[in-house]
Amino acid sequence: MQEFEIIKKYFAPLSAGFSGALELCDDSAVFTPPAGHELVITKDAISEGVHFIGSESADLIAGKALRVNLSDLAAMGATPICYFLALILPKNTPEEWVQKFAQGLRETQSEFGIYLAGGDTISTLGTLTISITAVGSVPVGGALRRNGAKIGDDIYVSGTLGDAALGLSSLRGAISDEAIHKISTNWIATSLIAPRNDEYIIARYLTPEPRLFLGQELRGIANACMDISDGLVQDLGHICQASKVGAVIYPDKIPLSEAAVLFCQTPQQVRGDNNSALESAISGGDDYELLFTAPPEKANLIPKNCTKIGQITAGKNVQIIDKNGKEITLSRKGFSHF
Amino acid sequence: MQEFEIIKKYFAPLSAGFSGALELCDDSAVFTPPAGHELVITKDAISEGVHFIGSESADLIAGKALRVNLSDLAAMGATPICYFLALILPKNTPEEWVQKFAQGLRETQSEFGIYLAGGDTISTLGTLTISITAVGSVPVGGALRRNGAKIGDDIYVSGTLGDAALGLSSLRGAISDEAIHKISTNWIATSLIAPRNDEYIIARYLTPEPRLFLGQELRGIANACMDISDGLVQDLGHICQASKVGAVIYPDKIPLSEAAVLFCQTPQQVRGDNNSALESAISGGDDYELLFTAPPEKANLIPKNCTKIGQITAGKNVQIIDKNGKEITLSRKGFSHF
Repeated sequence: MQEFEIIKKYFAPLSAGFSGALELCDDSAVFTPPAGHELVITKDAISEGVHFIGSESADLIAGKALRVNLSDLAAMGATPICYFLALILPKNTPEEWVQKFAQGLRETQSEFGIYLAGGDTISTLGTLTISITAVGSVPVGGALRRNGAKIGDDIYVSGTLGDAALGLSSLRGAISDEAIHKISTNWIATSLIAPRNDEYIIARYLTPEPRLFLGQELRGIANACMDISDGLVQDLGHICQASKVGAVIYPDKIPLSEAAVLFCQTPQQVRGDNNSALESAISGGDDYELLFTAPPEKANLIPKNCTKIGQITAGKNVQIIDKNGKEITLSRKGFSHF
Repeated sequence: MQEFEIIKKYFAPLSAGFSGALELCDDSAVFTPPAGHELVITKDAISEGVHFIGSESADLIAGKALRVNLSDLAAMGATPICYFLALILPKNTPEEWVQKFAQGLRETQSEFGIYLAGGDTISTLGTLTISITAVGSVPVGGALRRNGAKIGDDIYVSGTLGDAALGLSSLRGAISDEAIHKISTNWIATSLIAPRNDEYIIARYLTPEPRLFLGQELRGIANACMDISDGLVQDLGHICQASKVGAVIYPDKIPLSEAAVLFCQTPQQVRGDNNSALESAISGGDDYELLFTAPPEKANLIPKNCTKIGQITAGKNVQIIDKNGKEITLSRKGFSHF
């Protein structure tokens, strides 16, 4: 399969609906952001064996690659416009894999209203890697930043935390590679109806939900915002560092899913992992929920599905204070790629 | 070395001068294209063992990764604004390598007036891969396209062709890996003064020259334009396909460098390669010269350093006609990545 055939057959159709893509016929895309808007551009790469297992179905890998970039747009309060794909394929990747990968992109695109606008398909002597650059827009001056947290702000998170890290534990410990390979996006809908088994937390790992609508709602409300990809404490540390403030969080306030709690109650010998749900929520990565701060007087404007978990302080560090007022120290603060 | 340390120490300084990069502190860059301009965005990836040898000095690899993307901007007639980097590093890459890589980016940035605006540094179980997304701008409606070639247009190329492919032959055949590793950007200036040895063609492979100024000059003159990355015949085929025309080129008109001709006169047993300079010019990749078409009445506007090599025809294919009027057929049309 030639690069040009792959582009024509599988990727050019994904640009339909976005004229700036020039039907993927040229070296670059050409377009203008909406009037009164600034561009928001982000780039995130994922690599086999590090950011995904590799035996997942290709459509799930495609979906995750696009979703983690959409999550970065969400964190800035942006509306998606288009994206660019560098697909770095091991030699002899079967055409069926590429077809399934393109299908995953198509499904994710239509869910979030974004279009493929260009990129590059290359072969590698190494492992499968996907680099996506996502482009969005915000009204001029409206982008949410990390550096705006103010002393006295409340700290909020969306959704529940820790699910994705537990989902990865489940995939690694309790499910065979063959079973992972059979997973298709179809069952995710089912699993959301039946969250009491591992499928829910596995779906949270494989198919994170970029909080685009929430990010847009938070413009003008949140003082600082980012998405949680490396773990709550580590990422909150980034907000504190950028904003030159400290933070205190209350573990008993951190929202946990029922599925995460149930998973952690399963005997350790079956799971091969001794993480508790709370530990996963504090330091586990890959949740892609939004973490943001807002002044107390805006508390009534905070959208539902967000939970207050702490306050911004005059300190420098992130403190974790338990129900009894005692500070907890962590041995592991979050996911590190190196 | 942690991802955040790498970014802070080596990459954040490369964003200085471009406020939209937000000092690489946030998830995304935020900026607006100049008034009256459209954005031009391109994305090209290169992978060790496929697009570069891997034993080159890290600054040369960085320079090449950025230059091939700048060449895509040049092909559209765009002016560079900023770029995004996904650096996909094998585990245990030494810090010195990253430092040298950042130095190569810095040198290339300052040569072409472009700034780092964001990206991602990840580890891989595979080989070194670099994905860059370059952003530029053109006056609205001014982008050069592939699909505008008209029957009767003259076909031009900039510079000389075939050098890069011969440079790669030289690197592979005549120079040890150790010697390549010692190559630094410093000697390139020297080699340009002394083009009679292999250093000139090797520099053409390692450090291609994006024809940014030429691309900008060609706005309003060229009907179609692209850069030659996969070989003259293959890339001219892309213009023909997009423009629904044919082309005829005259091999004796194709500009060759003295260094390429001299290299090909060296006895085959020393070089381990029997390519002739012309064959390399017709089908060799990686030259990153501009290939464009323009109507004959604009011939007096064509910048110097460009050579007319053929005409656009009513046909469908690219024909190569020799001095005696005979058509030449090629066994190999250009570089294919798969």
